[in-house]
Amino acid sequence: MRQITDISQLKEAIKQYQSEGRSIGFVPTMGFLHEGHLTLADKARQENDTVIMSIFVNPAQFGPNEDFEAYPRDIERDAALAENAGVDILFTPDAHDMYPGERRNVTIHVERRTDVLCGRSREGHFDGVAIVLTKLFNLVQPTRAYFGLKDAQQVAVVDGLISDFFMDIELVAVDTVREEDGLAKSSRNVYLTAEERKEAPKLYRALQTSAELIQAGERDPEAVIKAAKEIIETTSGAIDYIELYSYPELEPVNEIAGKMILAVAVAFSKARLIDNIIIDIREMERI
Amino acid sequence: MRQITDISQLKEAIKQYQSEGRSIGFVPTMGFLHEGHLTLADKARQENDTVIMSIFVNPAQFGPNEDFEAYPRDIERDAALAENAGVDILFTPDAHDMYPGERRNVTIHVERRTDVLCGRSREGHFDGVAIVLTKLFNLVQPTRAYFGLKDAQQVAVVDGLISDFFMDIELVAVDTVREEDGLAKSSRNVYLTAEERKEAPKLYRALQTSAELIQAGERDPEAVIKAAKEIIETTSGAIDYIELYSYPELEPVNEIAGKMILAVAVAFSKARLIDNIIIDIREMERI
Repeated sequence: MRQITDISQLKEAIKQYQSEGRSIGFVPTMGFLHEGHLTLADKARQENDTVIMSIFVNPAQFGPNEDFEAYPRDIERDAALAENAGVDILFTPDAHDMYPGERRNVTIHVERRTDVLCGRSREGHFDGVAIVLTKLFNLVQPTRAYFGLKDAQQVAVVDGLISDFFMDIELVAVDTVREEDGLAKSSRNVYLTAEERKEAPKLYRALQTSAELIQAGERDPEAVIKAAKEIIETTSGAIDYIELYSYPELEPVNEIAGKMILAVAVAFSKARLIDNIIIDIREMERI
Repeated sequence: MRQITDISQLKEAIKQYQSEGRSIGFVPTMGFLHEGHLTLADKARQENDTVIMSIFVNPAQFGPNEDFEAYPRDIERDAALAENAGVDILFTPDAHDMYPGERRNVTIHVERRTDVLCGRSREGHFDGVAIVLTKLFNLVQPTRAYFGLKDAQQVAVVDGLISDFFMDIELVAVDTVREEDGLAKSSRNVYLTAEERKEAPKLYRALQTSAELIQAGERDPEAVIKAAKEIIETTSGAIDYIELYSYPELEPVNEIAGKMILAVAVAFSKARLIDNIIIDIREMERI
């Protein structure tokens, strides 16, 4: 594995891969890698000739009250994990190279898919995500880009970015990695008390229960949401949201139809957990 | 020459060129081609294996009071001219393919280089330019993109777009094509009266006089602007602006230094003419 910080060195490496006709799988991250990232790298390794992972804690996606400085960083550990996962190039650019000059000439605003779920309380967050991904996509020129469905809203925004601008990139959305009992893996799970850790799998169980209800023929969004809510209310966590939207458009749904996301956020004493399930009615009907 | 309207057909053609390792010169236009466009195509023909011209009257760059519907179109004449200029693919997409869906997911805002010169009175114009060029660049994947310096502000905005987002494109700015007497070629020149047509070359003469003054050692921006102004005031036209900025940043200059643009807009009875000159002090000093 090569670790590259210099942008022009990355460009050279990319030109070389392209001249050899090699496909490029790209895994953009903010580092402090966990099993979710490594699953993305695994998948990229299986599907492409070359795997490039970036580690860049992107200042543009942190709000003024969000802790950019305190975001955890451990580049040595990350490099070892990335190499082990079969990454060919680990791209670790400097902020002053990614955002040269005092001010931007051009900015991107994500107009849709952002004012719901976690985006509602993070104004400008997805603009920063779209800006840095546009830069990274133009530098890496990936054949495929890998994102985890744990952050399904980010996947929806990236889908909108790629399709609006006709980027020649295949977006690969990878299923959430779970513990054996169904709890979505997250670095925040360690902040759960022993009691909360026992309750936490109910989030996914709630989502599954709603999905089964739909499978059984329920077509009323209220009833579907209520079923999930009742299960989550048996935990000690406080529900931040349980919402159902079309996916990836993230528009309200009046009737259960097409492809949808059911997403929850629940605040436990020291950890706010999120989870979601993508439900495709058309696939269900086909089965 | 192939004329392609379908986006997926264009993508196929581009993939083919890329697999053959051919360089692509791209000339984006809104059609109704004149000698300026054909000069860009000529230059692209000389410098690239393949020349792609697009004709797309981009609704996003017209303001609510600007006449998108009345913008002149003559695709048959344009196709003949493009073929004659050695264009390989004439890309003429439909608006509903370039802007599918009811609303955009993502938009681009140009934050700098737009609130001066002609951009001052055309709010949102350059946002529309940046959006459509991002789409076209991603579709055509050009090695080089050609723009005329007659619209030097557009060149500055495109330069900002390409550099901010690390687009892998060489921007080629092509000198303004002029009549023998120095008047910048423009489809609007036909609206000049015979008397005005005789006066009109004074715009360029004024710009040149200022440049010569700088060459001779003048370093006060006011004096440089005044010299041009005095010459233009001998015409019957009304001065809209005479302005001096750093180029391509388009920031005010307190002292004559580096690379600058001196630009004028003058309203005659039925035609508003624009012209500009790029002055590079460093090149002058080298000579």
